[in-house]
Amino acid sequence: MWNHFNIQNGATLFGWSVALERFMDTIILADWLSTRLDRTAAEPMYRQVLELMQQAILTSQLAPGTKLPSSRTLAIDLGIARNTVLHVYDQLTAEGYVVSTTGSGTYVADTAPRDGAARQAKVEETKTPCMISRRGERLIAQAGVSPKQWGAFMPGVPDVAEFPARTWSRLQARLWKRASPDLLTYAPGSGYRPLRRALSDYLRVARSVKCQPDQIIITTGIHQSIDLTVRLLTDFGDRAWVEEPCYWGVRSVLQSSGLTLVPVPVDEEGLNPAARDMAEPPRIALVTPSHQYPLGMVMSLARRRALLEFARQHKVWIIEDDYDSEFRYGSRPLSSLQGLDDAGQVIYVGSLGKMLYPGLRMGYMVVPEHLVDTFRIGVAELYREGQLMQQAVLTEFILDGHLTSHVRRMRGLYGERRELLINAIRTRFGDALAVRGDEAGLHFVLELPPFADDRAVAADALAANVVTRPLVNYYMDRNNARPGLMLGYACVPNDEIAPNFAKLADVIERALLPAAEPQA
Amino acid sequence: MWNHFNIQNGATLFGWSVALERFMDTIILADWLSTRLDRTAAEPMYRQVLELMQQAILTSQLAPGTKLPSSRTLAIDLGIARNTVLHVYDQLTAEGYVVSTTGSGTYVADTAPRDGAARQAKVEETKTPCMISRRGERLIAQAGVSPKQWGAFMPGVPDVAEFPARTWSRLQARLWKRASPDLLTYAPGSGYRPLRRALSDYLRVARSVKCQPDQIIITTGIHQSIDLTVRLLTDFGDRAWVEEPCYWGVRSVLQSSGLTLVPVPVDEEGLNPAARDMAEPPRIALVTPSHQYPLGMVMSLARRRALLEFARQHKVWIIEDDYDSEFRYGSRPLSSLQGLDDAGQVIYVGSLGKMLYPGLRMGYMVVPEHLVDTFRIGVAELYREGQLMQQAVLTEFILDGHLTSHVRRMRGLYGERRELLINAIRTRFGDALAVRGDEAGLHFVLELPPFADDRAVAADALAANVVTRPLVNYYMDRNNARPGLMLGYACVPNDEIAPNFAKLADVIERALLPAAEPQA
Repeated sequence: MWNHFNIQNGATLFGWSVALERFMDTIILADWLSTRLDRTAAEPMYRQVLELMQQAILTSQLAPGTKLPSSRTLAIDLGIARNTVLHVYDQLTAEGYVVSTTGSGTYVADTAPRDGAARQAKVEETKTPCMISRRGERLIAQAGVSPKQWGAFMPGVPDVAEFPARTWSRLQARLWKRASPDLLTYAPGSGYRPLRRALSDYLRVARSVKCQPDQIIITTGIHQSIDLTVRLLTDFGDRAWVEEPCYWGVRSVLQSSGLTLVPVPVDEEGLNPAARDMAEPPRIALVTPSHQYPLGMVMSLARRRALLEFARQHKVWIIEDDYDSEFRYGSRPLSSLQGLDDAGQVIYVGSLGKMLYPGLRMGYMVVPEHLVDTFRIGVAELYREGQLMQQAVLTEFILDGHLTSHVRRMRGLYGERRELLINAIRTRFGDALAVRGDEAGLHFVLELPPFADDRAVAADALAANVVTRPLVNYYMDRNNARPGLMLGYACVPNDEIAPNFAKLADVIERALLPAAEPQA
Repeated sequence: MWNHFNIQNGATLFGWSVALERFMDTIILADWLSTRLDRTAAEPMYRQVLELMQQAILTSQLAPGTKLPSSRTLAIDLGIARNTVLHVYDQLTAEGYVVSTTGSGTYVADTAPRDGAARQAKVEETKTPCMISRRGERLIAQAGVSPKQWGAFMPGVPDVAEFPARTWSRLQARLWKRASPDLLTYAPGSGYRPLRRALSDYLRVARSVKCQPDQIIITTGIHQSIDLTVRLLTDFGDRAWVEEPCYWGVRSVLQSSGLTLVPVPVDEEGLNPAARDMAEPPRIALVTPSHQYPLGMVMSLARRRALLEFARQHKVWIIEDDYDSEFRYGSRPLSSLQGLDDAGQVIYVGSLGKMLYPGLRMGYMVVPEHLVDTFRIGVAELYREGQLMQQAVLTEFILDGHLTSHVRRMRGLYGERRELLINAIRTRFGDALAVRGDEAGLHFVLELPPFADDRAVAADALAANVVTRPLVNYYMDRNNARPGLMLGYACVPNDEIAPNFAKLADVIERALLPAAEPQA
């Protein structure tokens, strides 16, 4: 069918070309080229001549069937080396712009689609004829990603300036000295085995996760872990429970994989589904039991058991995002939901970026034993993973004890910063603005009065060079959102907390005060 | 609704607990624990007591409402420090296993779902109650990923042993010395700007790609580039043209994003759609014009123009995967399809892993100007990218000229290896088995006679420790596939080519010879 656009090859050209053939005057082509060549340009002559001739053929200034001058003639007329012209003709031949027939010469090939006239007329009328898709539009419209990824009070990022870069670099250099091919090629499905062993040890002891090294799959982080899970365990149109509010990134990943999201409210004990939610069980439910993101509450044991039982009865998969469990400033972190699961329905996902540095892009998931092969094949098939060198560096970092001591040191530091920020809030606002979810993690929520427009406040703050996220962005139903600001304190040096908060407080105050009547 | 599972809190417990309360005999709990504690284990006493008590509560051996002994009494009976018991009680309280009422003591909380009896009965009957999804099943069933990622004749991998690891490591160490927070946090949508500038310079000159640095988006490779594109530019159920045969990974990515695949045959000039294909234009078409993957032909200029014109008329997006364009052993690589596109409909994608090392996981895409913002937001929202340090190392590597000289050196080396492998084939089989697509890339196809079962041959070869991929795996319609073996020569040291091919040739010969009659 494509044949009606067929290129004229050497064999058919000759018969056909009789009708069309026009012998272009050598002088005309040489003139046309001469006026356009820039003999002082850095771009080599070969490239200039080639591109000009391609252009002339594509725009039909050199029409199909036109016989080109011999390379010798053109070289003389242009005053360039004959080899240059020969190279140009070879490349034009290789790319199909011209065809050469031995003894007969070189002709411009007929490569134009047949309805060339229609094409010329139409090409002007539509500048961007193709549109992005409905799911693409929705994704962009609801995108929560911030234009700034660093600075006070960016939520969800650790203080990377405190990262022991020298230690990391030393381990890295040592490993690169004996970089084996195995570590430079693609990863086998699940990642570097010694790292999986180290992580399973850590998760068993610290998080009461029931797992063997085989159950660990290394990913590039929460986004990929969730993406992989929904692509393996759910179908298009399936319902997914998400916490209301929840992390915006998760919503985008789920929706772009075709899931229908059902926002389920959270209260002080965590996920609290209504009767109508439970009447229509979802295919999958995503929860953050250790530290609800973004509000910070812990899911109670009763709710955990109820959720597991509901999931077991209705065959619901559960993704447990063990968000920020490493950074608790009061009690020990609670055990994982996964540790309570007898039915093999919980997929446990965690991130390493918050403990190390976010740019690392590394996370892990723990999958039930009966799904290990499925996930190993799935991760390799969908993402073709690599980064084994980086995984090997991290393994050394963990086994040498650097991870534990770094997290311990950061816990102390972030605890101090949290106190400093709370003090700054109290000093300025007393108890007028409440702080939520302040015992864990790298951020808390500063609540604003119900009438406040937190998006406007965040936009004004950004203009004053202070990054915050409005709480409303985390709600699917923005009409039910309570206004507030996500404040990340972890990445702000101690002495910059008060001055930055002062800037933010000015913005908040202006926003909350009734506008003064302009003086006449 | 979750309320009927509600935890009994301190206030309500007391009234309710009157009926249920059972004072457990101190001695009995202590005995029960004592027989189960391992005083010689490495696991701390705190952890052992905590886990045993959690277990006892979850299994109702310690029933809801049971009053626990005082921490002092239990400590004495167990012969352990009182602080240990206090910590256990604190953690049990924090996790919601028990509730404490001042002056009245500590009680086991009621956290069991209400239909506990039904649960006990059902828990045995289904060991894996949840199933993977239809799309998950299809993905796993058709997965093309190999269990071995390294060795002769693994297709599609460069020789990572030749990678200048020392140079890379030196640049890396230099950059880590001044690791700025900006490079350790998340990436702004499109990646490290100096790298995008270097890549756009390279693509303009080497590949005739029309682009500014802004149009470059850094990704983790072809898989992510294609995934991002289809999530932004197509909707569920849209039709996608893929070449028949094509790279299996692309098919998996497209299908798991909900596209309906239409395999379009290729001939010697590349994509060759039939009338029925053109009657139903797709939303998107994926092509490998520089070096068809896996067969290796180059798309002719006429076909390129025809495809672009068809796409313009029917508003079809085109993904140009410029596969292996860097490794050509004969003529210069052809210009890109993107360079011919006036309508802004071509998304150009490329990989860096083949030029450097696959484990790097880095690629790039060039998007039309009118889509730059869409793709920048989309990539950050869906994948939350990072790896800026690695991108900075690569930038230095490019700007210092190491990439160019490494690729040049590899082109020579791989050309030699290709010759060695072809010679080995000719020596053994003469012209009986044809070689296809041998002027470019890191692999070629060794054709097998029509009656051969290439999957069986590949499986037998793997048993003999030789990696190949059967060509049939690249076809959607396996009945129309011609049998063949994908042979990657790039990653095999020169002196290992002949011996490894000898092993493979034995397998092929056995497979092609009619089975000898067993001697009686």
